[in-house]
Amino acid sequence: MALILGIDPGSRKTGFGVIQHTVGGPEYVASGTIRLDTALDLPDRLKQIFDHVSDIIQRHNPQEFAIEQIFMARNANSALKLGHARGAAIVAAGVNELPVYEYEARKVKQSVVGKGSATKQQVQHMVRILLNLPASPAEDAADALAVALCHANTQQHLIKMAGARRYRRGRIV
Amino acid sequence: MALILGIDPGSRKTGFGVIQHTVGGPEYVASGTIRLDTALDLPDRLKQIFDHVSDIIQRHNPQEFAIEQIFMARNANSALKLGHARGAAIVAAGVNELPVYEYEARKVKQSVVGKGSATKQQVQHMVRILLNLPASPAEDAADALAVALCHANTQQHLIKMAGARRYRRGRIV
Repeated sequence: MALILGIDPGSRKTGFGVIQHTVGGPEYVASGTIRLDTALDLPDRLKQIFDHVSDIIQRHNPQEFAIEQIFMARNANSALKLGHARGAAIVAAGVNELPVYEYEARKVKQSVVGKGSATKQQVQHMVRILLNLPASPAEDAADALAVALCHANTQQHLIKMAGARRYRRGRIV
Repeated sequence: MALILGIDPGSRKTGFGVIQHTVGGPEYVASGTIRLDTALDLPDRLKQIFDHVSDIIQRHNPQEFAIEQIFMARNANSALKLGHARGAAIVAAGVNELPVYEYEARKVKQSVVGKGSATKQQVQHMVRILLNLPASPAEDAADALAVALCHANTQQHLIKMAGARRYRRGRIV
């Protein structure tokens, strides 16, 4: 059982989602969108991301931090902006001593929707179903919850694999 | 008189330079290169930048932070990497409550060499002359010292302008 914080960083909005990873499956804890004040200049906006993410960590006390991995960026200027926002969010995790796990967008969609090419709407819909929510969360919050769910699924898998390995070792001994 | 920290962030190496901005001109305090451990993954490397920049701030106690401004990035993947490094460095300034000043590369070169299209070697050479150093600093350290010098020059200018404005007001009254 672990609390997982998922973050979907962006230069205007940063989504966050906190889930509890229990034996019985994932449970919703909190989610939302950090809206950056576009009137502020870059250093102050990055400070906003850092402060808000740090606040969320201190309020919910998660043990793990999951974020989408970016391998190939398309547009140079949007890549620079995304890099700034990701840097600020990842540093907030590091400063608060949370281990960071990165997952490719395809893997997140595969894990949540069962299809690496799923649309944003399909992700929102499946996040709602999986977490038993009364309505679909907003896009950024849904993406943040999705990466947290992907991490929970991956960990579940690793725990099962570790269990299997231990079992095999038991038989050998 | 102010202590200025200049930072030249990069995904492998981050240069830093500290100068004292005195009435008599800029004085060298410290400079160097933070070499990132490329064996580490992204979150740990960003933590390295954040921790080192925070260390430098705590050791030298600068009042102002200067960094090169990037308007147009050329390559999407290198822009993303640069964005991560810049984000981590700028957040370190914000967390340590330093005001951040950004200067375009052309303006930095113009200020230090007198030519917006100056080469790296010309920047290294002029940084050496202006700060009265026994040898040219390494490239990243020179770039960091250059942005700090550019900030010192700009501030000097602003102080002079403020002085002139006050003087005019004096005459009107």
